[in-house]
Amino acid sequence: MESQYIGSNSGMEQQKEVKIANQRGGGTRESILRILALVLTLTASIVLGVGKQTEIVSLKLIPTLPPIDVPATAKWHYLSAFVYLVVADAIACAYAAFSLVLSFANRGTKNKLGLVIIVLDLSMVALLFSAIGSAGAIGLMGYQGNTRVQWNKVCNVFGKFCHLVAASTALSFLGSLAFFFLVVLGVLGLGRRSM
Amino acid sequence: MESQYIGSNSGMEQQKEVKIANQRGGGTRESILRILALVLTLTASIVLGVGKQTEIVSLKLIPTLPPIDVPATAKWHYLSAFVYLVVADAIACAYAAFSLVLSFANRGTKNKLGLVIIVLDLSMVALLFSAIGSAGAIGLMGYQGNTRVQWNKVCNVFGKFCHLVAASTALSFLGSLAFFFLVVLGVLGLGRRSM
Repeated sequence: MESQYIGSNSGMEQQKEVKIANQRGGGTRESILRILALVLTLTASIVLGVGKQTEIVSLKLIPTLPPIDVPATAKWHYLSAFVYLVVADAIACAYAAFSLVLSFANRGTKNKLGLVIIVLDLSMVALLFSAIGSAGAIGLMGYQGNTRVQWNKVCNVFGKFCHLVAASTALSFLGSLAFFFLVVLGVLGLGRRSM
Repeated sequence: MESQYIGSNSGMEQQKEVKIANQRGGGTRESILRILALVLTLTASIVLGVGKQTEIVSLKLIPTLPPIDVPATAKWHYLSAFVYLVVADAIACAYAAFSLVLSFANRGTKNKLGLVIIVLDLSMVALLFSAIGSAGAIGLMGYQGNTRVQWNKVCNVFGKFCHLVAASTALSFLGSLAFFFLVVLGVLGLGRRSM
């Protein structure tokens, strides 16, 4: 009877150890994803925020006169979709840093803060995906143009800036995937505990 | 001793009843949100997919000759951002119908299917928000235009079609909010069970 009791006790201890090891593993994965999200959104925001390109373009002001050459610059704040991407990346980056501290403080405890963090991670997924869609659509229009609405492509002139937009959009996409997997990790952690 | 036992038993019964009532309430809210998501994304996809506008526009083909009047039509599949919105809405609508059946089959049970549904709901949030961002950015460009890239506004000509785009984007946004709250509901349900 005593050995049975000891056996059951050691089984419970083992279960507890496995649970703690699982929590630690989950916590490490969460921290890595948060740091990844922070670095990716920070880089995306800097790449687009800092980059600019100046080119000489020919403009025909009056049809009867020959075209004149004027310098034209491409910058992120000339198009609202790029402003939205830079601002969304900055918000997501600041939140990633803040949530990293919060999740460290909350580690191993079962309170409502954990649920709030998952909902905020979800909000970052929504924010970043809408900004990526927005910048991606304008970037694609700049690359291909559209004859139906008579919007000419601009990437044949501002090729370097277009590459920066593509790089920033790709980095933001990877950052938003990090937030996506943070929500998945949170849901799986809650599921493991509730089953 | 007996009355204490009865008291504790009735307390457990009460707790069980409250849990069942909570599960039922959560299930009803989930079904309402799924039906809402289905209706909203279906309407959004039909509004943009069916709507078109034909107008007579003046085109100057050769600078020395007077402009000629030609009929021009605005349709969803002329711009890739609108194609993306219609396809994303159709996917989200089909998934909403499928997940409604799945969640009915899964009601009250604690298995991995519930977690899979939450992750799929999350994927719909990402898909719909990127499509809304994309259509919103192109719609805004059509409404405002941009002198820096010399893309003229087109909503002064195709006003009715622009209103349809705005209505479809707004409906898709409401649909994506329904999926957002479905994820929140799923997370809160798991949190309640694990605490």
